[in-house]
Amino acid sequence: MRTRPLKVALLGCGVVGSEVARIMTTHSADLAARIGAPVELAGVAVRRPDRVRAGIDPALVTTDATALVKRGDIDVVVEVIGGIEPARTLITTAFEHGASVVSANKALIAQDGAALHAAADANEKDLYYEAAVAGAIPLIRPLRESLAGDKVNRVLGIVNGTTNFILDAMDTTGAGYQEALDEATALGYAEADPTADVEGFDAAAKAAILAGIAFHTRVRLDDVHREGMTEVTAADFASAKEMGCTIKLLAICERAADGGSVTARVHPAMIPLSHPLAGVRGAYNAVFVESDAAGQLMFYGPGAGGAPTASAVLGDLVAVCRNRLGGGRGPGESAYAALPVSPMGDVVTRYHISLDVADKPGVLAQVATVFAEHGVSIDTVRQSGKDGEASLVVVTHRASDAALGGTVEALRKLDTVRGVASIMRVEGE
Amino acid sequence: MRTRPLKVALLGCGVVGSEVARIMTTHSADLAARIGAPVELAGVAVRRPDRVRAGIDPALVTTDATALVKRGDIDVVVEVIGGIEPARTLITTAFEHGASVVSANKALIAQDGAALHAAADANEKDLYYEAAVAGAIPLIRPLRESLAGDKVNRVLGIVNGTTNFILDAMDTTGAGYQEALDEATALGYAEADPTADVEGFDAAAKAAILAGIAFHTRVRLDDVHREGMTEVTAADFASAKEMGCTIKLLAICERAADGGSVTARVHPAMIPLSHPLAGVRGAYNAVFVESDAAGQLMFYGPGAGGAPTASAVLGDLVAVCRNRLGGGRGPGESAYAALPVSPMGDVVTRYHISLDVADKPGVLAQVATVFAEHGVSIDTVRQSGKDGEASLVVVTHRASDAALGGTVEALRKLDTVRGVASIMRVEGE
Repeated sequence: MRTRPLKVALLGCGVVGSEVARIMTTHSADLAARIGAPVELAGVAVRRPDRVRAGIDPALVTTDATALVKRGDIDVVVEVIGGIEPARTLITTAFEHGASVVSANKALIAQDGAALHAAADANEKDLYYEAAVAGAIPLIRPLRESLAGDKVNRVLGIVNGTTNFILDAMDTTGAGYQEALDEATALGYAEADPTADVEGFDAAAKAAILAGIAFHTRVRLDDVHREGMTEVTAADFASAKEMGCTIKLLAICERAADGGSVTARVHPAMIPLSHPLAGVRGAYNAVFVESDAAGQLMFYGPGAGGAPTASAVLGDLVAVCRNRLGGGRGPGESAYAALPVSPMGDVVTRYHISLDVADKPGVLAQVATVFAEHGVSIDTVRQSGKDGEASLVVVTHRASDAALGGTVEALRKLDTVRGVASIMRVEGE
Repeated sequence: MRTRPLKVALLGCGVVGSEVARIMTTHSADLAARIGAPVELAGVAVRRPDRVRAGIDPALVTTDATALVKRGDIDVVVEVIGGIEPARTLITTAFEHGASVVSANKALIAQDGAALHAAADANEKDLYYEAAVAGAIPLIRPLRESLAGDKVNRVLGIVNGTTNFILDAMDTTGAGYQEALDEATALGYAEADPTADVEGFDAAAKAAILAGIAFHTRVRLDDVHREGMTEVTAADFASAKEMGCTIKLLAICERAADGGSVTARVHPAMIPLSHPLAGVRGAYNAVFVESDAAGQLMFYGPGAGGAPTASAVLGDLVAVCRNRLGGGRGPGESAYAALPVSPMGDVVTRYHISLDVADKPGVLAQVATVFAEHGVSIDTVRQSGKDGEASLVVVTHRASDAALGGTVEALRKLDTVRGVASIMRVEGE
């Protein structure tokens, strides 16, 4: 084994960074044996150097992250700051000064992954980011390496623990959205401002990363259709139960049937209770992958948290260190397929639509005619009502999102339709 | 991209090999883009060259596997023959003649993995075998690479599809073992001679491989305690249901609490219905991994079959080809921890024991005394009976297998114990 240590610079020492530092210390002998050389924490860049950080030599702590990545003797920069800047500039600077980079930064990779990979390539360095998607769950490496000889057609995942916690609570207790969110906040599963989670921004960043890797193409954050889950109601869960389903916030990346384009989207959807994703409880994440040869695979585990995310960061750190010792590089960006990303209107799926309608003869015929005129075939209809008010629940066969959108627009114009109570996609069948 | 192709020799062209050849042809452009050079099927060694092989150029087919691996221009040998010989000699010869090797051979890797890794190292070549454990499910790579910075404490898996199909059928239909086996055979899930599956030999080979990789130590096939599932009865499933459990044939690899030793075993066991492994149906496989930092992960998918196994083989093929182009090597054997493998007697778990006893006063006291004398603490007892015969169901707290064995031996000597109807371990709690 080489005795001269590989030097690691840690950018950020919050929940994840402090765990990375802790494990680097407590598991140092194992890491050395697995890498073939010791690894040494050579510097830790933080914003507030006066905060006590157990187990970290105060002499390593600096507020000057730029100077740290420019030192020139750093082998690997671990970026766990999050956000776009200064993380982006620091990573690029690190490549230019000879370091490889391990990042947990989903927002940055989703937005600027292509440019960062190009910077890594230009400097012949590694860029790894297993921790950016679904925390500790090995997902990037299996998609990029284990399935490199296969053709992935679909990735369907629960990639945000906060929203899964909220939806699971609504499903289990019958609570409404606000009540379940309050519980999640009280228990520390939701942040004070939960927007990034509940509006699907976090999941959309992960969907962009997963789609790009799965389909060997480039999917930008703006390419991902995004709907949050703040309007999911207890009534939706009751409807889902009647369908033998539950509701999850899903990230769905699909290759079109003709193989010529892909789509990526995040929205709440009903999935059958028999689907393996339906049983994913609490803040856990799981990603279901469908490919030509392998068939159906699922990866399950904790999608966030300091220690799980640190596990993914350290797995990447070992890989990058091994590459440096061996003189090789890991797989870079693979976007050769250059497939267009189709708009949401092209997505084909099934729909569950609840309508409030007038309780009089002929309403069902009117509604059914509107569906037929827009080419949306109805699977089942359930009608119930009293006192002049009624509800219609329509479940469609597969149709494009554009066709469904046109249908709903036309339904709203019918005098007999008082309102569209909910529209929910049905996935995973 | 390099235009000169990498040359692949395929040893074996059965269910898996023919799928490997098919995908190499149909996905050749994708494989070339992902590797950075085309791959070319340079030879196919088979036993019966007269069998028609759709899509394979007859000029490539040979019965002389030794000559094929000795050609000297082969970059990668893909071994999908199975069994110990001639596979072992062919792989060693391949290394000596400059090729790297991808194998799907669980029996060989479990028995001779150390020697084969040494041969790969001596010739500075790669040895990959993702397909040897759980078919298409990425498992070796996640354990070896993604979790390389973590400390794995436990691997608990359903790694044999045939036995899971049989047990699932028994659970679902109430059928006995023989009836479920007959159904599995009729549907092609069990072989004419099912011994390797139902007696746990197949799962034991996978347990040896998984334990070695997970704990960075060497676990030989002989180190794995093995019990088959041919004696699991419909009555056992009824008992399991009363416990809120089902029964699975599990491969269990554990690090002792003090970290100083490991165990590996295969046997049927009760697991709670709430455990993610309980929901694994039919011939699917799933492996649950517990580690210090990542927590609980699960990997799920098809554990066998031509196409799924080929997917794993081709993922390895892409990795090995990339390594050859880049001049590096993938991770080799990591057995530095050199932990002793403890015998089955040291394993600590819970037990569900059904006894046929005389229906008279004092029997429970006698039985309880025997448990106490052997240091096995009882969690619950359920007594039922009529007409002078009775049954006692005892569920214990955690105890060593040795202590439980001593208890059962002593119970059998009691006049009032007519027989020990079943002993089943309870896992995953």
